[in-house]
Amino acid sequence: MRHQELGGKSIIIRLEIGGDRMNFGLVANMVSNLGGDIIAIDTIHIGNGISIRDMTVNVVDATAIRSITEAIEKIPGIRVVNTSDRTFLLHLGGKIEVTPKVTIQNRDDLSRVYTPDVARVCEAIREDPDKAFSLTIKRNTVAVISDGSAVLGLGNIGSRAAMPVMEGKAMLFKQFAGVDAFPICLDTTDTEEIIRTIKLIAPAFGGINLEDISSPRCFEIEERLRAELDIPVFHDDQHGTAVVAYAGLINALKIAGKAITDVTVVVCGIGAAGVAITNILLSAGVKEVIGVDREGILVEGETYSNPVKTKYASYTNPLKRSGTLRDALQGADVFIGVSGGKLLNRQDVLGMAPNPIVFAMANPEPEILPADIDDIAAVVATGRSDYPNQINNVLCFPGIFRAALDCRALAITEEMKLAASEAIASVITEDKLGKYDIVPSVFDQSVVERLRDRVIRAAIAGGVARRIPKEYR
Amino acid sequence: MRHQELGGKSIIIRLEIGGDRMNFGLVANMVSNLGGDIIAIDTIHIGNGISIRDMTVNVVDATAIRSITEAIEKIPGIRVVNTSDRTFLLHLGGKIEVTPKVTIQNRDDLSRVYTPDVARVCEAIREDPDKAFSLTIKRNTVAVISDGSAVLGLGNIGSRAAMPVMEGKAMLFKQFAGVDAFPICLDTTDTEEIIRTIKLIAPAFGGINLEDISSPRCFEIEERLRAELDIPVFHDDQHGTAVVAYAGLINALKIAGKAITDVTVVVCGIGAAGVAITNILLSAGVKEVIGVDREGILVEGETYSNPVKTKYASYTNPLKRSGTLRDALQGADVFIGVSGGKLLNRQDVLGMAPNPIVFAMANPEPEILPADIDDIAAVVATGRSDYPNQINNVLCFPGIFRAALDCRALAITEEMKLAASEAIASVITEDKLGKYDIVPSVFDQSVVERLRDRVIRAAIAGGVARRIPKEYR
Repeated sequence: MRHQELGGKSIIIRLEIGGDRMNFGLVANMVSNLGGDIIAIDTIHIGNGISIRDMTVNVVDATAIRSITEAIEKIPGIRVVNTSDRTFLLHLGGKIEVTPKVTIQNRDDLSRVYTPDVARVCEAIREDPDKAFSLTIKRNTVAVISDGSAVLGLGNIGSRAAMPVMEGKAMLFKQFAGVDAFPICLDTTDTEEIIRTIKLIAPAFGGINLEDISSPRCFEIEERLRAELDIPVFHDDQHGTAVVAYAGLINALKIAGKAITDVTVVVCGIGAAGVAITNILLSAGVKEVIGVDREGILVEGETYSNPVKTKYASYTNPLKRSGTLRDALQGADVFIGVSGGKLLNRQDVLGMAPNPIVFAMANPEPEILPADIDDIAAVVATGRSDYPNQINNVLCFPGIFRAALDCRALAITEEMKLAASEAIASVITEDKLGKYDIVPSVFDQSVVERLRDRVIRAAIAGGVARRIPKEYR
Repeated sequence: MRHQELGGKSIIIRLEIGGDRMNFGLVANMVSNLGGDIIAIDTIHIGNGISIRDMTVNVVDATAIRSITEAIEKIPGIRVVNTSDRTFLLHLGGKIEVTPKVTIQNRDDLSRVYTPDVARVCEAIREDPDKAFSLTIKRNTVAVISDGSAVLGLGNIGSRAAMPVMEGKAMLFKQFAGVDAFPICLDTTDTEEIIRTIKLIAPAFGGINLEDISSPRCFEIEERLRAELDIPVFHDDQHGTAVVAYAGLINALKIAGKAITDVTVVVCGIGAAGVAITNILLSAGVKEVIGVDREGILVEGETYSNPVKTKYASYTNPLKRSGTLRDALQGADVFIGVSGGKLLNRQDVLGMAPNPIVFAMANPEPEILPADIDDIAAVVATGRSDYPNQINNVLCFPGIFRAALDCRALAITEEMKLAASEAIASVITEDKLGKYDIVPSVFDQSVVERLRDRVIRAAIAGGVARRIPKEYR
């Protein structure tokens, strides 16, 4: 039998049963004794003296499923064909499809959407290339592009293995904001090749969402593409994270009773997300951001092996503090971690200013568990869905691209990102605001609407909107 | 007012009408007198003393619509906001969309299709990259790639302007064969850059359909990609045309009462399609193919400025005939034209062997009009939909890729192409076969089924199928 990785709660065991009937009582007892719960049995095929049946079983963990399948295989006349869990089944054949908007029903339709009549549309675009924004998918389509070099917590897993994440992202784009997104995984990690390839495939797209590209290459790739393309380029791991973190901070500060211009923020982990979070906070008016990485506090004047950090030090930490993470936290108001698990302890947080705000966003394991500091922190947020206050990029990318496409933005500017944060924060009204409620649910449909409105206004005000949607004229 | 190109029969005129009501009688009379036929009037908006109405009008030609709009604009209180025809309306916002296969309804769904659970799927693919064929869109997705250098009869119109054709192709792939196809238009015509870019974006795809790339670059691009990628690469302008032309010839020969191994075929126009047609005919057993281009008959030993022609001459025209197109046609059984309009005349066809077969496939104007030789030719076919026997690539590409994806073919081999031709020809049974019925309708659903079956069998027999579909085990 083939065995796929498990871990989900609901798994499906396909059985091949010899003879006329299976001894269901025997199997049910066995499954139950081993910690499983039979939800359904579906007959897939009967014939030639055998039957194929899919048995859906809820299990507590992977150990249970292994002992269940091993026990079933010992029953004479029953063979386990395969075991698959719901997550893998959901991925069979991929998670997205490319569908026509209209059905071609006759020759007349065919001649309009394809030859010969399509030639007139091609000619109209040739005469005025900007018509691509109205007459092709460029109007509503974003490329989700990765090189597979920094996927989730998995590292450099390559272009094929990165696809499920990019497909998932494409699903979210469409479901949450009606944006058509197509995943492209590049079979290279060479900076110049990535830049060149994206430029060459850009004509079809109205925006580029960069994804899971490792630092420091991600910075150069994004900067260069922003300069060389006339459509928005947005590295979600940087800016999506920054937008949602700042949105959370806006509301967390209300609870802590502090003003954004007065707080000292320690950012731990100066990678893609750390740099972007720092930049948005500085744009938002924070005066003191202290960056900490493996080398301790980053200080201007030092030269770090990673030039990103040297540059970072040059415009942060204005009081030139030095030392360890704990030193940085002494008297600080906000900790924002995008580093590694368990880097922070209760003692560190006790050294912070009164009503400390802790965003422990390392994945999968936060810098500190919320339970460890719930009693001493004003607000704790993480990147995880199983704690309150999840800082989740899904709150940002669908809506910010919806806005960018609708106003044909040349770029997603710093002002548009700030507007996005404010929009997300504004969904949590005074009456909803609470220590465990600083950001909306990812399923809150008002997020995209709110975001779209604020971001389009910011794009128009900043002069990067090529089109003013009717309601803003 | 903005004026879009016209030509379709049904156009929509958007009117802004001042005052409370429009004088409909006046407008209707005017439209009617000028050769138009009002089909419908839809109210789009009423308010502030004006109304916006869309008037759908059938017209005979572009002249009529111009005179109609000009006349309407002279009516006091009425302004023509814009005029658009159905073809352009069908293209608004593009013709395809990217849709999730399942809706994310709750947190459990989200965690399966995206983080954190998607990581297990990524890891499974990292451990065994071939799992991308089952767990990602690679299983069912083809890239439709063009550089916009040889689009329809329009020439090098560039990447943005080529998109409507590629989108149309993606629609056909899905509707006719359930294949997900995504259009990629490359902003370069450099051979090496095109090859490199396609290789870099290949991980997401199960096949590459090259489209509208000019000769001779198309040959090198396809050859190199076939050698360097492990998924099928198929230049439709070459092989799609060749497969359908040969399918038509199989049935045309039945009507003419000739055997494929006995006929002399003159191929006129040695570009992408001409070379591919020649190659499939040679594979099919034709012994004498004579190529004709601007230089006249191509003869081995001559050196032509285009190396493609020199190479072509080396393996065709075994009797080393020389001279003009008319010389080539003397006593020939079959003419296949993929050249230019009006290159052939009745006299040329009279010089051919009895029961001549003429495929005049130049677009938009055939080498000779069917009406000119209907009485003297056994069969006439063209590339146009307004004559019988249209040699249309749509008969081939959806089904051949359906087959290739379903058996995870490493390539589309010559044997698979021959099988495709035979499959298409076989849809026309003895009782259906006729002088004006040598190929099936593009709307005949049995074409894809038949094609899939024969092509999968050929792939398995040829050892290029990585997966044997259940029904062939």
